[in-house]
Amino acid sequence: MKKNSKAAIVEAAITLFNINGFNGTSTRDIANKANVNVANISYHFQNKHGLLEYCFTTYYEAYLNEIENGFLYLHEGATLCLKKITENILNYQSKNIHLTRFILREMSIDSQVVREIMSTYLLKERFYFKKVFEEGMARKEFRSFSINYMIIQLKGLLTMPFLNTHYITEVLHVFPYERYFTEKYVKEIYNWIDGVIRNESSERVPTLVK
Amino acid sequence: MKKNSKAAIVEAAITLFNINGFNGTSTRDIANKANVNVANISYHFQNKHGLLEYCFTTYYEAYLNEIENGFLYLHEGATLCLKKITENILNYQSKNIHLTRFILREMSIDSQVVREIMSTYLLKERFYFKKVFEEGMARKEFRSFSINYMIIQLKGLLTMPFLNTHYITEVLHVFPYERYFTEKYVKEIYNWIDGVIRNESSERVPTLVK
Repeated sequence: MKKNSKAAIVEAAITLFNINGFNGTSTRDIANKANVNVANISYHFQNKHGLLEYCFTTYYEAYLNEIENGFLYLHEGATLCLKKITENILNYQSKNIHLTRFILREMSIDSQVVREIMSTYLLKERFYFKKVFEEGMARKEFRSFSINYMIIQLKGLLTMPFLNTHYITEVLHVFPYERYFTEKYVKEIYNWIDGVIRNESSERVPTLVK
Repeated sequence: MKKNSKAAIVEAAITLFNINGFNGTSTRDIANKANVNVANISYHFQNKHGLLEYCFTTYYEAYLNEIENGFLYLHEGATLCLKKITENILNYQSKNIHLTRFILREMSIDSQVVREIMSTYLLKERFYFKKVFEEGMARKEFRSFSINYMIIQLKGLLTMPFLNTHYITEVLHVFPYERYFTEKYVKEIYNWIDGVIRNESSERVPTLVK
């Protein structure tokens, strides 16, 4: 039963954090929603901050895993590799849509946890993106561009619909909870990769060489 | 002095909201930081929620104004118009960098204020983007694409560096507070417009017609 209560606590916490924010949620609220004792939360996570840290690290461990799985395709070409990575990220975020929204919002705050996450996980994320971009430029698959500014664009595109689910539902009538959303959005990112990142002549280069 | 204390309250509130979140900030905290009485806050804004609403409406009134100023260029071409609008938005966000960060984070929460802002200001914003996109497609300046999905991309690109100022500073070493940032980022968005939105043959079309 121990494991179930842990999962129930995490699920209740994510729901409440998304509604009332981290500061607006008490350990007691979480315990009530998860149908457990406050002592149970202390046992698993010490306190609310421990719970927050747990959410962050489990999220970013799995997130980096998705990037690493895509990164394995680098020898088959930088474009293919970047597409794999973005597809993996979008699928992962889509499968964890509530947690993703909460994490993305928390990441915009300047806190101790956020700084730690940045200096471990997001630096690694940057490392992979940079490698792919550099490889793509070296092979002339990609145009020459500023890597950091391109990461800003890429991360903006990857996160927007998951952070702003209400906006895209209410204003744009696009429903991120529906299955076809991710499929369609993956294609949008592919178009961005082809239109902004890829060298227009990159298709012809391998043919000429062969 | 009335006007000064109002401005001081707003400034103090934005700073505290950015550090501690809206729920983590009390009216007393704001009064202390702004060096005014709590009664002063009540006088101008009734309560914390009134203050929040004031921030939102003044922000989005001016924001929409920037879009409308860009929209006036539509008769000179959809590409030019879209570039004017995005440049205006980026400059506006850059001039109000702290408030922008707070507003963008709050907008990801499902609250009464947010719903009201969406149904007034963000529906109007969508109206203008849609008009520009439709005009661009009608004139074959733009490719044919899904307008709502393109608004997701555009808004993702416009907001990312302003919401995630810590990330881009700490991880990417890009400094959104520096003046050249906006100049450079405007060019990035222009590249996106040229690579993703514009019809590749659109330059040639007017020449052939003439």
